[in-house]
Amino acid sequence: MNFEAFFEEKLGGLREAGNYRVFAELERQVGSCSRATRYRPDGSTQDVTVWCSNDYLGMGQNPIVTGAMKDAIDRCGAGAGGTRNISGTNHHHVLLERELADLHGKEDALIFTSGYVSNWAALGTLGAKIPGLIIYSDALNHASMIEGIRYARCEKRVFKHNDPEDLRRLMALDDPAAPKLVAFESVYSMDGDIGPIEALCDVADEFGAMTYLDEVHAVGMYGPRGGGIAEREGLMDRLTVIEGTLGKAIGVMGGYIAGSRALCDFVRSFASGFIFTTSIPPALAAAATASIRHLKVSQLERRRHQDNVAKVRAALDAHGIPHMPNPSHIVPVMVGNASKCKWISDVLMENHGIYVQPINYPTVPVKTERLRITPTPMHTDGDIAQLAGALSELWSQCALARAVA
Amino acid sequence: MNFEAFFEEKLGGLREAGNYRVFAELERQVGSCSRATRYRPDGSTQDVTVWCSNDYLGMGQNPIVTGAMKDAIDRCGAGAGGTRNISGTNHHHVLLERELADLHGKEDALIFTSGYVSNWAALGTLGAKIPGLIIYSDALNHASMIEGIRYARCEKRVFKHNDPEDLRRLMALDDPAAPKLVAFESVYSMDGDIGPIEALCDVADEFGAMTYLDEVHAVGMYGPRGGGIAEREGLMDRLTVIEGTLGKAIGVMGGYIAGSRALCDFVRSFASGFIFTTSIPPALAAAATASIRHLKVSQLERRRHQDNVAKVRAALDAHGIPHMPNPSHIVPVMVGNASKCKWISDVLMENHGIYVQPINYPTVPVKTERLRITPTPMHTDGDIAQLAGALSELWSQCALARAVA
Ligand SMILES: Cc1ncc(COP(=O)(O)O)c(C=O)c1O
Ligand SMILES: Cc1ncc(COP(=O)(O)O)c(C=O)c1O
Repeated sequence: MNFEAFFEEKLGGLREAGNYRVFAELERQVGSCSRATRYRPDGSTQDVTVWCSNDYLGMGQNPIVTGAMKDAIDRCGAGAGGTRNISGTNHHHVLLERELADLHGKEDALIFTSGYVSNWAALGTLGAKIPGLIIYSDALNHASMIEGIRYARCEKRVFKHNDPEDLRRLMALDDPAAPKLVAFESVYSMDGDIGPIEALCDVADEFGAMTYLDEVHAVGMYGPRGGGIAEREGLMDRLTVIEGTLGKAIGVMGGYIAGSRALCDFVRSFASGFIFTTSIPPALAAAATASIRHLKVSQLERRRHQDNVAKVRAALDAHGIPHMPNPSHIVPVMVGNASKCKWISDVLMENHGIYVQPINYPTVPVKTERLRITPTPMHTDGDIAQLAGALSELWSQCALARAVA
Repeated sequence: MNFEAFFEEKLGGLREAGNYRVFAELERQVGSCSRATRYRPDGSTQDVTVWCSNDYLGMGQNPIVTGAMKDAIDRCGAGAGGTRNISGTNHHHVLLERELADLHGKEDALIFTSGYVSNWAALGTLGAKIPGLIIYSDALNHASMIEGIRYARCEKRVFKHNDPEDLRRLMALDDPAAPKLVAFESVYSMDGDIGPIEALCDVADEFGAMTYLDEVHAVGMYGPRGGGIAEREGLMDRLTVIEGTLGKAIGVMGGYIAGSRALCDFVRSFASGFIFTTSIPPALAAAATASIRHLKVSQLERRRHQDNVAKVRAALDAHGIPHMPNPSHIVPVMVGNASKCKWISDVLMENHGIYVQPINYPTVPVKTERLRITPTPMHTDGDIAQLAGALSELWSQCALARAVA
């Protein structure tokens, strides 16, 4: 077999479908709001405003966070130097796990390399190690949860997105004695809709099931202490596991689960993806701890964030740019065609210095390609006016449908 | 089902078998050789010498590395703020990928969250996406490779450890037209033996198979530029994929593959574990790049490292402490019993201020429990004498067999 030819052929298929991905090469500029230097393929550079970062609150640039990170480097060095078991458990990891347990009102927490690995390893371990476990998974769950369940090779049922009735229907079909777990998200990252946590927990309770909530796109941003949607709605104690990331609103990198002491110890003791890998640098743990501590007491970032989200929506409305309504901070502007979406994004970048990555398959279904706009507290009113103006110009050029006012 | 009781029961089983893991909580001390502060469970602290770190060359404390990391934080902030596709490709990631491609003499490279994720995602994607691929896997391959192959759900054959003849036997049994890949390591981390790369590549070539080499425990430490065992033996061009970590001798965190442009682009485009996760912080990429650049030209760290390995072996020999012979930098002192191994480790820590983690199941097979000693260039002659003396004392107390001189 000619492997190179096979790879080229598959890549050609992506190109034809408009799904071949070109990464924008950036260098964020600390201290200048949402600005970054963009490197073009020819090596020339351009200043751009970033409108699609998941550093939702700008905490990655907050001196409290960067300062804690640099201090920890001075004290402990760059890397952890080992797996958690073999010399790689640093004091900063332990402090971070305590902070996370407290954030979610749980007995304990466990950190992983990323949110992806935390979902994959936790769901994979629970599904593989609890004999007969059936996992009920929301139809729009993130790839990392799907892969974790796939890894477990346990029984799996997919319930209709955000549909407690469909969950109940499916659960009622199964053996009442079988152990069960229901897995879902709070804020869904591409549509920005929010799961009916309480209703899903009610159904899970009827069947004695564990509940597993991914709060990756909510941690830091919702709830009086940034504990997420479950905190805001007073539901944290209804969840067996709350999973989150340190790489989005927290501004750093890493992932975690929070739950009972025994559950965390079980995953710690049996999850391949936790055991056999170098732990995150102490400096990342220290930076994340500082970020979480700050967001537990400061409302400023959350308030400014929501203000800017409202301003962006209003500006788009004023220009008749259609965007998906939802109760979160994510502003999806639907285009519905991969090539057109990429073209708009390219023009925004080259002619307007605005960077919004086109979102295509496999991140969203084909024909729902979109620009996913994520306002931050650091965007200025001028940035918002520029974004809405540029989109409006392109909407006219592209003859895309306007929203009816 | 009572989930809590189930978790407790399984944890109890680990405790009874002596396999329950207690992580040592450390705070490395930059600038004071291999010293760290250890936090006891009661909160009191103790100064210890670390003898089991995988920061093999001490690069995690090298000012070139920590300086590059802090500079990048000042310029770009803490986290990357997105997945590689959605605002998370930083200039520093691109520079690191170029550096890695050059290190291994390949067209391109691709970075992942960790070495674990790179093996899992690369092998998983190749195995799942190349129709009919058969993967031939060394019997002692690392958990991350095994999980990647398991994830792929492709055909798998396990050949006897480091045995090209067994590989040939197995390959000859399969359809000559089936696409094939042979996966193995250079330095095996627990026994410290080194794979017969050339002979395995010869067999792979006979059958037109791709070759996949994990150099996680060799990158930075072997070869004139730190390219690993394949570089040292002039074999880099025989490997289709070279996989490595940034978390051990490089001193930071992250993983990668290096290979042809098309192969890297293929994995980049199709691997769930690459696509759906936040990219590593720019500061980690900058630190790793600085570390690799330094190790491409400096022989000092490698020479001192090998000198200290030889000194440790000689000191153990002088005291009759048996250690596994091998051609690498890993010094396994076999104990062969989980509880005894943990007891020795505990006494070394409490009475001698020496930290060597006991290695037990599932990292090594039951009855091969060991102390895995990893000398670094930073250990002093005094450290070495202290280690050998303490072990000798314990060997007498424990009535463990001495090596016959
Ligand atoms: C819902 C959801 N869960 C988990 C993840 C993975 O988190 P991380 O980026 O920390 O790997 C993501 C996105 O990356 C996500 O959108
Ligand atoms: C052979 C081997 N491959 C891969 C890994 C994973 O690398 P990382 O620690 O960067 O996840 C390890 C150890 O952790 C290893 O020993």
